[in-house]
Amino acid sequence: MNSKFLSDKARHLTPYIAGIQPRENGWIKLNTNENPYPPSPKVFEALATADATKLRLYPDGESSDLQRAVARAVSDELRRAALPQIAGNSLPRKHMPASEHPDAGQPIKPENIFCANSSDEVLALAYQAFFAGKTRILSPDISYGFYPVWGEMYDAGTEFIPVGQSRKPRIAPADENAGFRADFSINPADYAGGNGVILANPNAPTGLALSRADIEKILRQNPDGVVIIDEAYIAFAAPETSAVALVNEYENLLVTRTFSKSHSLAGLRVGYAIGQPHLIDGLRRVRDAFNSYPLDMIAQNCAAAAISDTEYYAETTAKIIAAREFTTDFLHSLKTSGEELSVLPSQANFIFAKFPDAPALYDFLRRNKILVRHWSRLKNFLRISIGTQDEMEEFCQCVKRFLNDEQKKRT
Amino acid sequence: MNSKFLSDKARHLTPYIAGIQPRENGWIKLNTNENPYPPSPKVFEALATADATKLRLYPDGESSDLQRAVARAVSDELRRAALPQIAGNSLPRKHMPASEHPDAGQPIKPENIFCANSSDEVLALAYQAFFAGKTRILSPDISYGFYPVWGEMYDAGTEFIPVGQSRKPRIAPADENAGFRADFSINPADYAGGNGVILANPNAPTGLALSRADIEKILRQNPDGVVIIDEAYIAFAAPETSAVALVNEYENLLVTRTFSKSHSLAGLRVGYAIGQPHLIDGLRRVRDAFNSYPLDMIAQNCAAAAISDTEYYAETTAKIIAAREFTTDFLHSLKTSGEELSVLPSQANFIFAKFPDAPALYDFLRRNKILVRHWSRLKNFLRISIGTQDEMEEFCQCVKRFLNDEQKKRT
Repeated sequence: MNSKFLSDKARHLTPYIAGIQPRENGWIKLNTNENPYPPSPKVFEALATADATKLRLYPDGESSDLQRAVARAVSDELRRAALPQIAGNSLPRKHMPASEHPDAGQPIKPENIFCANSSDEVLALAYQAFFAGKTRILSPDISYGFYPVWGEMYDAGTEFIPVGQSRKPRIAPADENAGFRADFSINPADYAGGNGVILANPNAPTGLALSRADIEKILRQNPDGVVIIDEAYIAFAAPETSAVALVNEYENLLVTRTFSKSHSLAGLRVGYAIGQPHLIDGLRRVRDAFNSYPLDMIAQNCAAAAISDTEYYAETTAKIIAAREFTTDFLHSLKTSGEELSVLPSQANFIFAKFPDAPALYDFLRRNKILVRHWSRLKNFLRISIGTQDEMEEFCQCVKRFLNDEQKKRT
Repeated sequence: MNSKFLSDKARHLTPYIAGIQPRENGWIKLNTNENPYPPSPKVFEALATADATKLRLYPDGESSDLQRAVARAVSDELRRAALPQIAGNSLPRKHMPASEHPDAGQPIKPENIFCANSSDEVLALAYQAFFAGKTRILSPDISYGFYPVWGEMYDAGTEFIPVGQSRKPRIAPADENAGFRADFSINPADYAGGNGVILANPNAPTGLALSRADIEKILRQNPDGVVIIDEAYIAFAAPETSAVALVNEYENLLVTRTFSKSHSLAGLRVGYAIGQPHLIDGLRRVRDAFNSYPLDMIAQNCAAAAISDTEYYAETTAKIIAAREFTTDFLHSLKTSGEELSVLPSQANFIFAKFPDAPALYDFLRRNKILVRHWSRLKNFLRISIGTQDEMEEFCQCVKRFLNDEQKKRT
């Protein structure tokens, strides 16, 4: 039902379609990349001690406490995981002046952080701040389905570069109907001279990740545009993959992240960007022309509590990665005939796999109360979010039954 | 610091500036129209029983439970306060079909409700859905400071109609520098033939309200555009003022509201729109091209709990109205010389008053740890949010001291 009052913009846009959220229980939900584990005990505590009295006041529009907590956590992550790279390469000493301020020694400071109501909101604001009205914004096709929507919404003329271009097939030959070549990989050489770049690393729905060196190439090849690296799934990738270590060196780098997947907080809607202060200020400008207080008090507190619990999330992330590898290996073990079943090497909390008859498998799984994601455009593939080990074993057995049934039909 | 990467849009916009939020305690905060009372005990309960486990899942993007709670509350409000008008005029029987669905008998149904992350977000989405790229959007000057920002942001060509136009002075003669005539009132005759209308009722910062009959005139005079009535402050106005009773009759009416003021939940960021389903669908379209899940689970639950507690909010609202009338009367009693001190008759949770030397009074109040709002453009006026009776008494005494001091200086 299209209202006659719609603006041209609203009339012609094609909204993003999110995965199904069944209201009843009993589903194994492997369709929206949610984390199968509850959030940290610290989130339970933050929620239990939240003071409703304070809700009568407006929240801090900057989310200052959360900004500080994020800056501290990201700095610790850099120190822990990527210190060799930083010291030798990306973060020269001049960027870390000594001072008495507690955050002073950190490579990432609160002024490098912008918090908002999900990384979707952060990205939508980034489109408005840096891409609106420009042409030659470079982005992979395929990637997160929201990029073309924001491009349309905010008049960002986007050149979609097919994944797999100019590279040799690594996995299965591409599906002819899908229009992609080869291995779904992103070739940094294809991203040059843009007025902006946006890509997810690891990419969705493929799960493939670029190395930091590849990201650096893209940053150098696009000095006139902001390069947005959407790190929604970075927690599940090799630690040296993140582009955050490059933030102080590249004025055109904006990294975005979310609490939804890595921190089991999809229901809380918190995301953030990491970049040099001039980019953070740009995001703030458009935020204050949209909604000055994007994050409620409870969300700010719970997210700050979550990001401080490094240990807990290291554990749940490790479990998810183990279940991902188990699932990948199991599916490969089912492969019997030629190229019909293949799983891309994922660095995310989902896998992207080709099956003999993906739409039929999707239906079969659904009849068995297992939800995965299928796109008509990628018809031979399914994207499977990684649940608990038990859920993945049930999923694997279900796929095995399906393939056996198919086998019987053919013989 | 303007980044060289900014889009033209971001570079040229003038962001909205919200009132100050001091971080330390001890202030009497009468500057951002917050409610001085804590939210309902039901909100405390909803928060205490919130289950952090569920936060791992995405929330319901439609906020269905909250939609239903709002529809029920608004329907009850209509039944209670405005039943004569509805029965005789605005809600003919055909719009209320009998059915077995629990919401069926309600004048306002869940499909009439759109929930989002504050009424600012609702309004920003409404600009994109109904005003973007159009010309002759009619809006009062002065009104809520965010309207011109959204107009710029979303290319809505707005004609700002000075308040007080074509009416006789009712209060003080307008300040010559402010550029407004007379009494700050809105004349419905000035709003005709627009491609859209947006106005706050009661208006901000004046606190003046239009009658429902005036709103109806504006709806009839603008059949080709959506008329947005921003009812952020409606809880503090006479019950027959709300335009909600007209929703089923006028396809071009969109009413927006917030939990921030009436429900003491500024810190939770929840707002909603009420309109016919084709308008609600339009808002949904643009939401799904921006951020599919605008409200976190906790906010949805707490807001639903709040709006169900009619009795509690009737009490706190009555106290605020009583303190407003006390303050208005007290200030009028201080008036000694001509037209120098006047208070507009407010129907909101703030008053807008003219003082002999408003900037000096602003500073004096601030030195006494009382924050009010002052705009350079409205230089002889202050907007004073209504706090508790005790706070307003302290405010009044402070104003009295200031005026006595001024008096002494002159004599």
